[in-house]
Amino acid sequence: MDGEVRRPAQLMEAMRYAVLGGGKRLRPILVAETANLFGRSDDGVIYAGAALELIHCYSLVHDDLPAMDDDDLRRGQPTVHKAFDEATAILAGDALLTLAFDIIADARVHESADIRLTLSRDLARAAGIGGMAGGQMLDLESEHRDRTEAEIRTLQAMKTGALLRYACRAGAILADASPNDADRLKRFGEIIGLAFQLADDLLDVEADAEAMGKATGKDAEAGKATLVGLLGIEATRAELDKLVEEARTLLSPFGENATPLNEIARYIIERKN
Amino acid sequence: MDGEVRRPAQLMEAMRYAVLGGGKRLRPILVAETANLFGRSDDGVIYAGAALELIHCYSLVHDDLPAMDDDDLRRGQPTVHKAFDEATAILAGDALLTLAFDIIADARVHESADIRLTLSRDLARAAGIGGMAGGQMLDLESEHRDRTEAEIRTLQAMKTGALLRYACRAGAILADASPNDADRLKRFGEIIGLAFQLADDLLDVEADAEAMGKATGKDAEAGKATLVGLLGIEATRAELDKLVEEARTLLSPFGENATPLNEIARYIIERKN
Repeated sequence: MDGEVRRPAQLMEAMRYAVLGGGKRLRPILVAETANLFGRSDDGVIYAGAALELIHCYSLVHDDLPAMDDDDLRRGQPTVHKAFDEATAILAGDALLTLAFDIIADARVHESADIRLTLSRDLARAAGIGGMAGGQMLDLESEHRDRTEAEIRTLQAMKTGALLRYACRAGAILADASPNDADRLKRFGEIIGLAFQLADDLLDVEADAEAMGKATGKDAEAGKATLVGLLGIEATRAELDKLVEEARTLLSPFGENATPLNEIARYIIERKN
Repeated sequence: MDGEVRRPAQLMEAMRYAVLGGGKRLRPILVAETANLFGRSDDGVIYAGAALELIHCYSLVHDDLPAMDDDDLRRGQPTVHKAFDEATAILAGDALLTLAFDIIADARVHESADIRLTLSRDLARAAGIGGMAGGQMLDLESEHRDRTEAEIRTLQAMKTGALLRYACRAGAILADASPNDADRLKRFGEIIGLAFQLADDLLDVEADAEAMGKATGKDAEAGKATLVGLLGIEATRAELDKLVEEARTLLSPFGENATPLNEIARYIIERKN
């Protein structure tokens, strides 16, 4: 109904800069591969993955702001507020977040309006105060003070876990998987989230700045306790191996079809950036 | 599906502070009164109005940030980044924007998932790059330079007009009005948007700081051209009168039932803050 009036060029450019500058596209790949596990691989899956990726990208733009994590570089390039300015970065993040809810409502996503609405509402919950945004708040609050293992696990389940969990369950729902299978994939997403964060913490400790394209050792510098710091490198590696094993067991009913998802789990653990 | 993990107390508090500190509630009132015009007045209308109000409130929080309009006061109280801090204000805005898309999807809003989805997508468009967020970008871009009347009208149709237009059309849709009536109400919303902005500009010129509870003459100070500045006070008042008259004509088919909406139009023009 309410058509758009005009799209300001600079805001559009900043949004494109924030989204099209690379990145692993882990979330849309998870949406696509979980949907594919249940036999769906058309454009609608890409639309849903794109909506999710916009949410992820908006969060990077806002997290990089001076008042938040104050990062000048992202993937080796100036962050949005550096390439443009702070006001543009705030608005670009806002507009990307908003655009996600336009795209997830697209008729191509699923023929059932009920399912599209469920995907939209659940995206809001995964991204909101009880998910990603709340996790970022917990992360900021806990700077420069000790964090318990439980606190770290909660904030990570929210900050990075919520969108990854959403990605895997959304893929299943897009392909009309059974509620049981959708729950199974949601647990797979949880595992991916845990593994992703543990691997990230390990990278933060181990990788050199060049390979990452961003400052490393940053968490330690900001006084943020990490699981690796609390558990030690060996115990972290052991937990990662256990997670990959759990993922494999979880996906075993799907046989060969689950190979791409198992490979994603392995990639996450072995990645170098 | 994806339940929330935890709601951080400080973020929740900042969100409540941003929303519950007063305000005219013009947008939800318009949703409620336009729905009421077509015979609907249950809780679902309040839900839709609340979703819209959250979008409005998030935009105030972000617009007040130092990198944007840099306002310390809002409705006579410290702005969110002053009462809390900048990071919390950014996240509170993000979380309010996100929560709106959770609430608009609530089953109470309308029994038809199709209609809820339409309302959700249109809300995204009214709030996004082609609507409110884009309008704020145009407003920031045009500081300290001359603006034409056409430019000002475009940015105002986006920055404040889009949500008011949405409010009136959404109310009609919520109450299953005919497409023709929904379009009529959308035009009414456009008129309200124009009148609101012109009245705001007049207030900015005329009102004293105390009555407004915020700094006045701010547009002139920021070097922003306004329609009042270009057209003059008398021509602005004449346009306002014409708009009220057009609103009355537009609503005349609804007879006495349109009295509340006509009174809202008059209130907007005569308001002192």
